[in-house]
Amino acid sequence: MGSDVLDDVIGWRDGHIIAIDQTALPHRLSVLRLTTVDQLVDAITRLVVRGAPLLGVAGALGVALAVRQAEREGWDAGRLDAEVKRIADARPTAVNLRREVLAVAARVPDGADAVEAAARAVHDTAIEVSKRLSERGAAFLVEQCGPRPLKVHTHCNTGALACLGWGSALGVIRALRDRGALAHVIADETRPLLQGSRLTAWELDQLGIEHYLAADGAGPFLISQGHTDAVVVGADRVAANGDVANKIGTYSLALAAHRAGIPFVVSAPESTIDEATASGADIPLELRAEAEVTSFQGVPAAPAGSRALNYAFDVTPADLVTAIVTEDRVIRP
Amino acid sequence: MGSDVLDDVIGWRDGHIIAIDQTALPHRLSVLRLTTVDQLVDAITRLVVRGAPLLGVAGALGVALAVRQAEREGWDAGRLDAEVKRIADARPTAVNLRREVLAVAARVPDGADAVEAAARAVHDTAIEVSKRLSERGAAFLVEQCGPRPLKVHTHCNTGALACLGWGSALGVIRALRDRGALAHVIADETRPLLQGSRLTAWELDQLGIEHYLAADGAGPFLISQGHTDAVVVGADRVAANGDVANKIGTYSLALAAHRAGIPFVVSAPESTIDEATASGADIPLELRAEAEVTSFQGVPAAPAGSRALNYAFDVTPADLVTAIVTEDRVIRP
Repeated sequence: MGSDVLDDVIGWRDGHIIAIDQTALPHRLSVLRLTTVDQLVDAITRLVVRGAPLLGVAGALGVALAVRQAEREGWDAGRLDAEVKRIADARPTAVNLRREVLAVAARVPDGADAVEAAARAVHDTAIEVSKRLSERGAAFLVEQCGPRPLKVHTHCNTGALACLGWGSALGVIRALRDRGALAHVIADETRPLLQGSRLTAWELDQLGIEHYLAADGAGPFLISQGHTDAVVVGADRVAANGDVANKIGTYSLALAAHRAGIPFVVSAPESTIDEATASGADIPLELRAEAEVTSFQGVPAAPAGSRALNYAFDVTPADLVTAIVTEDRVIRP
Repeated sequence: MGSDVLDDVIGWRDGHIIAIDQTALPHRLSVLRLTTVDQLVDAITRLVVRGAPLLGVAGALGVALAVRQAEREGWDAGRLDAEVKRIADARPTAVNLRREVLAVAARVPDGADAVEAAARAVHDTAIEVSKRLSERGAAFLVEQCGPRPLKVHTHCNTGALACLGWGSALGVIRALRDRGALAHVIADETRPLLQGSRLTAWELDQLGIEHYLAADGAGPFLISQGHTDAVVVGADRVAANGDVANKIGTYSLALAAHRAGIPFVVSAPESTIDEATASGADIPLELRAEAEVTSFQGVPAAPAGSRALNYAFDVTPADLVTAIVTEDRVIRP
């Protein structure tokens, strides 16, 4: 199972960030070299680099990048602060980005080498956390559903591309496969940007895992018809009360799983849990460009001038969540 | 409000069927001339002509077309029967197609003119039924929600393109607008074939009605956030127990409306109600080509060889349906 390419999703090489261009997948595997804060912020905004835990790693490496650029270009402390803040603010919903930027930025007074070491540690920890998370999630599902090959429904992309290592929800799926406890995966295509079709299908191909795509509107119905034993998704932010912000479309799966009486499991690192946010109502939800909905890859689907409501994330209330599994614990809201 | 083009969606001219090519919208308004059963079956299969009530009209006119072709080409009765059966079987889920084909085919012994008159009557009745249905649905919603401008969420395309006349769910929306009881419409894009983006947005443009598109996965969340006062959808078949088959994605809206405590209204002509089908489990659900999901308007979205589960319809259980409004009555399952 040729999954080596998944080991190098984002990294630090010779003072720069290298990252797989996720907008080019699945048709082209292209590795970008990001050498300036401008390039990184653009990559985050355009979803070249995406996924809540990976955004945390990108933010951490971004601070190291900013410090190197400051040395090269002779920025003062105010300019460096402003550039670091631009990275932290590049996307609003995933708590990981801001959190890891602030953590690594706290090392700036210790010098460039200390910042770089802290950023590399965030990178390496993400890989290790992802594997512990994946094993814990698989164990929880086997405990919930019994030792049989499970049909698992997932949404968006939550594999190595989103997390490093094994992933979050897709990591759980990989760990289930390794235990012989996976039948197959149903993956939502995840409009408007089709991370399911473009990225999850590609990762599952790399891993040799049987899978079927479904239109987002089909997921809840497939669940109602017994096509699914459990739903496993990632998270962009978990509020203190257990409400979960995740890719738009997640809430509908939670409603369907609740009615079908099957587990709805959120798999996310501890860094995604935000005790400072009381409930889902307090999570800022990114509203993206309307053209993402009215077209796909530049091909218009709607009449010229059509408007769209393009929330990138939704909130699933805690009462619909069977469990939030992190690398350290199983939280039952 | 230039909606004249909506008055001529399908019709009978000089022994042939004329129909708007719905696969070319919204980019091109093209009217096709269908002169053979082969052309009609192909048009139905490819969704050039679509929408449950419109399929009924197409089937009725199709029998007239088959009788004219039989005269021209000297078919015997067995061949004519077989060709009529091909029309009835062209799509399995909407009950209207088979029902109207059989009704008009019963007139074959009376001769071509009688068949043509019966087919035209089906066409004209559809227009009249659609307007009564629309008024009844609007009155029901005003009664349920009170006399205020309503934000209405809808799915797929249920306007003149799907029904003739005013439409079914979109007809209710048009009638609400005419009463001054409509704020705006949120329309799901309706993957995989984007009838919402391509057709509903186009019809609402023609009618000058304010509207916003949403990805299918966003609909349930928007409902949970108070963006919607009522959900109104059409139906392809209503079973005797009140279960409703409609375009894939409908079930998730019903779940969300139920949790939000807002009306979920099905607007459909009596011809869509199938007392011969006991429940949703007995409705045949069309499984369409996987490539509809793995690509987007011909642009591949997934890795080559990706599989997909592409049910074109889902079933909403009767307990999630507030009311089924027909031209004659309001059914509360």
